[in-house]
Amino acid sequence: MSRLKLLPLNLVLFFAVLSISETVAQEINSQLKWKIAYHKTESEIPEKWLPATVPGAVQLDVMKAENYKQPYWYADNFKQFDWMEDYFFSYKTVFKRPSLPKGNRVFFHSKGIDYQFKLILNGINIFEQEGMFTYVDIDLTDKLKDENELKIILMPIPKIKEAATYIPGSETYRQNARESVKPAVSYGWDWHPRLVTRGIWDETYLSVRKSIHLTDFDISYTLNDEFKNANLSLSLKGENLKGKRYKWALIDNKGSVVFTKTGSFNSNNEEVFANINNPALWWPNGYGAPTLYQSEILLLDKRGKLLDKKQSKVGFRKISMIMNDGEWDKSAGFPITRNRAPASLEVNGKRIFAKGSNWVHPEIFVGLINKDTYQKQLQLVKDANFNLIRVWGGGITNKESFFDICDEKGILVWQEFPLACNNYTNDAKYLSVLQQEATSIINRLKKHASLAIWSGGNELFNSWSRMTDQSLALRLLNSLCYQLNPQTPFIYTSPLYGMGHGSYVFFDKDNSKGNEVFQWLAKSDNTAYTEFGIPSVANLDVLKQFIPSNELFPPKKGTSWETHHAFGAWGENRWLELPFLEDYFGKISSLENLVIYSQLTQSEGLKFIYEEARRQKPYCSMALSWCFQEPWPTAANNSLVNWPNAVKPAYYQVANACRPVLASISAPKFLWIEGEEFSCELYLLNDTYDTLKSGTIKVSLLYDDKKVDFASWDFKEPKQFENTKGPKATIKLPVMKNGLFIIKAEVVGMPQYNSTYTFLYKGTSVTYLKSSVSNN
Amino acid sequence: MSRLKLLPLNLVLFFAVLSISETVAQEINSQLKWKIAYHKTESEIPEKWLPATVPGAVQLDVMKAENYKQPYWYADNFKQFDWMEDYFFSYKTVFKRPSLPKGNRVFFHSKGIDYQFKLILNGINIFEQEGMFTYVDIDLTDKLKDENELKIILMPIPKIKEAATYIPGSETYRQNARESVKPAVSYGWDWHPRLVTRGIWDETYLSVRKSIHLTDFDISYTLNDEFKNANLSLSLKGENLKGKRYKWALIDNKGSVVFTKTGSFNSNNEEVFANINNPALWWPNGYGAPTLYQSEILLLDKRGKLLDKKQSKVGFRKISMIMNDGEWDKSAGFPITRNRAPASLEVNGKRIFAKGSNWVHPEIFVGLINKDTYQKQLQLVKDANFNLIRVWGGGITNKESFFDICDEKGILVWQEFPLACNNYTNDAKYLSVLQQEATSIINRLKKHASLAIWSGGNELFNSWSRMTDQSLALRLLNSLCYQLNPQTPFIYTSPLYGMGHGSYVFFDKDNSKGNEVFQWLAKSDNTAYTEFGIPSVANLDVLKQFIPSNELFPPKKGTSWETHHAFGAWGENRWLELPFLEDYFGKISSLENLVIYSQLTQSEGLKFIYEEARRQKPYCSMALSWCFQEPWPTAANNSLVNWPNAVKPAYYQVANACRPVLASISAPKFLWIEGEEFSCELYLLNDTYDTLKSGTIKVSLLYDDKKVDFASWDFKEPKQFENTKGPKATIKLPVMKNGLFIIKAEVVGMPQYNSTYTFLYKGTSVTYLKSSVSNN
Repeated sequence: MSRLKLLPLNLVLFFAVLSISETVAQEINSQLKWKIAYHKTESEIPEKWLPATVPGAVQLDVMKAENYKQPYWYADNFKQFDWMEDYFFSYKTVFKRPSLPKGNRVFFHSKGIDYQFKLILNGINIFEQEGMFTYVDIDLTDKLKDENELKIILMPIPKIKEAATYIPGSETYRQNARESVKPAVSYGWDWHPRLVTRGIWDETYLSVRKSIHLTDFDISYTLNDEFKNANLSLSLKGENLKGKRYKWALIDNKGSVVFTKTGSFNSNNEEVFANINNPALWWPNGYGAPTLYQSEILLLDKRGKLLDKKQSKVGFRKISMIMNDGEWDKSAGFPITRNRAPASLEVNGKRIFAKGSNWVHPEIFVGLINKDTYQKQLQLVKDANFNLIRVWGGGITNKESFFDICDEKGILVWQEFPLACNNYTNDAKYLSVLQQEATSIINRLKKHASLAIWSGGNELFNSWSRMTDQSLALRLLNSLCYQLNPQTPFIYTSPLYGMGHGSYVFFDKDNSKGNEVFQWLAKSDNTAYTEFGIPSVANLDVLKQFIPSNELFPPKKGTSWETHHAFGAWGENRWLELPFLEDYFGKISSLENLVIYSQLTQSEGLKFIYEEARRQKPYCSMALSWCFQEPWPTAANNSLVNWPNAVKPAYYQVANACRPVLASISAPKFLWIEGEEFSCELYLLNDTYDTLKSGTIKVSLLYDDKKVDFASWDFKEPKQFENTKGPKATIKLPVMKNGLFIIKAEVVGMPQYNSTYTFLYKGTSVTYLKSSVSNN
Repeated sequence: MSRLKLLPLNLVLFFAVLSISETVAQEINSQLKWKIAYHKTESEIPEKWLPATVPGAVQLDVMKAENYKQPYWYADNFKQFDWMEDYFFSYKTVFKRPSLPKGNRVFFHSKGIDYQFKLILNGINIFEQEGMFTYVDIDLTDKLKDENELKIILMPIPKIKEAATYIPGSETYRQNARESVKPAVSYGWDWHPRLVTRGIWDETYLSVRKSIHLTDFDISYTLNDEFKNANLSLSLKGENLKGKRYKWALIDNKGSVVFTKTGSFNSNNEEVFANINNPALWWPNGYGAPTLYQSEILLLDKRGKLLDKKQSKVGFRKISMIMNDGEWDKSAGFPITRNRAPASLEVNGKRIFAKGSNWVHPEIFVGLINKDTYQKQLQLVKDANFNLIRVWGGGITNKESFFDICDEKGILVWQEFPLACNNYTNDAKYLSVLQQEATSIINRLKKHASLAIWSGGNELFNSWSRMTDQSLALRLLNSLCYQLNPQTPFIYTSPLYGMGHGSYVFFDKDNSKGNEVFQWLAKSDNTAYTEFGIPSVANLDVLKQFIPSNELFPPKKGTSWETHHAFGAWGENRWLELPFLEDYFGKISSLENLVIYSQLTQSEGLKFIYEEARRQKPYCSMALSWCFQEPWPTAANNSLVNWPNAVKPAYYQVANACRPVLASISAPKFLWIEGEEFSCELYLLNDTYDTLKSGTIKVSLLYDDKKVDFASWDFKEPKQFENTKGPKATIKLPVMKNGLFIIKAEVVGMPQYNSTYTFLYKGTSVTYLKSSVSNN
């Protein structure tokens, strides 16, 4: 009965996200000019104060002020920040006491200070916090002088005792994160340098609030079983509200008012109820419009004068995680174990196929990420025909604008808590910080229509992490999600039993299911492919930006190729995969050809995986590639989008493979030899609930300058959310000059469903030319 | 965001178990004479009132008063209770207002009323509850008259709308339990008739309490990593305590006072801390003594006069569920799924092998179960060398004396919540009752040293139940256990991924791993065998008690053999298995022979399973047979103990197979044919951390009247908790007259480790005689 000293339950509510009255409250942010300094001990007086940018990062401020090498992502410039890990950093600002109308109060508000810090006002410690995801909101009013100095002292980065020393190249340094709620990725990953960023990383300002104001609100609803009716409930909280009036209006996406509810406050808490018939539902991309309603809450005095205002969006939808189709029918002999875990998403009563990718970081310095960053990348997500992104547990929980944009674009969000590839401790101190941070995250995100899945973190139940169903951190997260947001599915981690992670290369030499992706995936039967990847070299222009020109070709260890993860990132040849490329394509003689061949394998490999996962529907329910983007320019990586926002060719192939409806072929391999008979199975893939017409698919071989039609298939009207399987198509491969050939599947009269596939050919008279490669 | 209307979090604490001051409070139970009546509607005035026994059951009271056939367990007498399911039952008692010293108060207290009920005092509804596991404790004082009538109205049994009609023989009627926290077993199981018992089922009385008294206390402790120090914390609650004194003493098992802490109350809550060095630890059976300390809390006035007293037992131990040895080292190719769930128990830093069985019900009418029932059966558990019992989720959570005895005997308890083989609903009403009941159960049981594992229920993640990781009932239970008792392992259900249930027969004709238990188990590699069984016919004298003599032989469908589960209980031949027995032993000509052959297969089959599971250690961590006992006399069943408390021969074989140390052989099959070479592997099984000596095992064949030594093995000093594997031993089988032969493994000079195994022999000159069978 050794009892952990956890936070009492009633404290859970204390951490509820504060919704600041942005509209009416006066922000006096513009007054604040910040400076920054570093020091070896907490009490040491810094030698100098440097200009600081807020939000930002301590590394960037010092870099700019002290003439460090720039840009930070060039070559191995990131190493110049190593010394900062064990230093204290202090932010400082001075401001005059604002002249306040009677009853008004001044708050210090920050949406994110990374990671452990103290707030010092006029020399007095007024607040401490560990954790970057819990908003800080402190009433300064009674402590203000005419002239004020506000200081924020950041503690050194968290490290575990056993691994306090940074050992370059060590694969275990991510373990430093296992006693903190700081995202593990910055301690180093196979695509991320060791660069532990820190600082004020989200909006931070002083705010003046009236004595009468709303502090918080929560809109919840219940959809009936037929999704024809929504019962809404608004919970309002504020100060000095008694006798004041509220006016709550819901406005549809055409601007029409659906209802208005008015009433008076009897206390500082009020519950308001409403009901709407036939709500326009929120649908993920590919299944309908992501309809959002606008909620507007006005606080009025008796004469109708506006005192405060809250606006938010509401999307009506129900998301469940249900058993994969067919899993309950699988029969197993005794001794029988449990069935696999459900991994199929149902939205508004319809099973969907989740297509998407793993979202890591758009930017290594998270303080630089803004709404525009998110807007651009999430538009790419949507344009790729994706409907779900898994926000991977190694990174941050994103800023609010991320979720607003996902709501608007119909992108489902699988949100992981900040745990990844570690055995996070059962110690009470860690659990209390995690409880605080998770509570903040849950309360902030739960109002978003795009929120689809909570997950404890990344790969926690695998041997390299060694957490289990018994780990207290995961039981805590499950418990908090159950208490605060039970209607959203919760999983402990990915992969769960039945889900699959990997492989991450085109040619997996140790895979018992076969070496090429065409083989190892086709022989798998996972419920959901929640990570898989094929690496490629970065785009040529990206490479040239950060690799010194004398290192560009041939790629070598010990150069920027290695620090940017083309060598030894994970195994000797990750992620460049040079032996495989030269085995397939012959000696590679130029950087241009390296880029082309590498990106071709990524394109064709990923296309195969997305389409094969869809062919395995209905049992299979998801295809989420590793990974969508990257936080700095890698030399080689699994990403679809190069830092900062440059799409690789594979992106387009993946977008094609994720079209709601398309013709698809399944070939047994990528590499063909002269004289072989090429064969493939034909499919019409359909993830929609649309009514589709019958049609004809013609299949042809394109090689050298020739085109040979070799198969035709009349498919019948496809059923809703069902693929249609066609016949096998074969053709004896002719002798070719060009080492690549193309198979094209054309849907007569419906070219939007056409698909093309490039294969590698080895024959006696082949020459490999740059011009021979086409990614269509 | 359709939000469930769950109980608020702070209500969780409201349901904490009340510890009544038994010693000092005056019970006036003896005044209460109860009567009972049945009626069709809640308001209908009953025709007559019958004498009632409390605790007891409505069925038994009516049976006794109205001349029903007796005993209830004979033949198909249970069917006469069918009509009661949909009736209301009322208990009634009358009592005078006790003369109360100033400030004293009268409470109605019940430790269990089954299932949904109302309390009516003098015609006024004073309390309602759904749930049989939450103690009822109601202050009656201000509502009392000189003469009082207290009535308890029981609602009809819960049923789901879709299956409200009882269809005899239907396998789905247990679904009636899926919206309630009433144990599912009484709706019918493959060894339990449809007989939904009801009534006041545990101690129930009026209690007079002084104005100054203790209401509750909680002792928790933390053991340090070396188990050399315990930090204790006592939380005291009561009424009118300010200025009073407490005296807390801990007394060791030799009667010596370890510490005494005294102090004064400043409020009605007080926390007291203590520390002890080198606490004698509580160990499960086979690993050390189950040492218990006595805690004594005295409430005293300023002059030292005793006002109240609380006594309890404390056992110091730490129980964890850790990954099975070797599981993290298993390598799997990509796509990789999660590792299996941990299923290995560690007690006080030592991995143990859990040997035991599944505890169902000692008695169909749970109101009849008392301390003596538990004492007898738990002594059998201990004598079987068991150290763990799984309290199966289809049955009740046992009364307090059950856990007291487990604490004393060193029997670990795997406690399931009352969910079994159903898809329990996500509806808010069910969840709120479950929250109330689970909270009561957790708070009551968590103080017991024997509590080892919480489990959501039985086989919930299998296709016949269809709950999943997403089911809200299971997430609620996980959350409650985390909040109230995080240090005890929690699992959603059994089997989890890697655990195995089944098979339940000696000869499993559909098993791809082999038909005989010797084959299907040996080819399995589960982390824990948490259910497995081999059925047998009941003991001869048990059969004769409940089967009418004209039905006794041959056993036939449509007789008491069938109503008592020898036919059609689960598949056509369950549990009698007559085709298999006659295939192996030839035409069975008498009841005596049927019992002997059937019980022989159970004995040898179960012996094989326990020993084979132990041979699969360290990967395998548990062997828990299905099932230990039974709640009424079955004609055939997997039980080791016939109702009410008669051991079957298999019990002794199992007890032998579970000795901490023994010689063991592993044979590939049970049935041998004339001329074959018998072979087996030799083992010295050791589950202890004792220092053992080297020795010699001699193996001999006993057949007809002969004994042939055919192998000898010198084993080296066995390591702690490690088995030692020896050589293969073989012998060409001679021609025998007797159809059974025995292999004996004798440890020279250590006969307590000897083992014997009976095998079946088919040859040209065999006769099967009763006298030929020996269970040793």
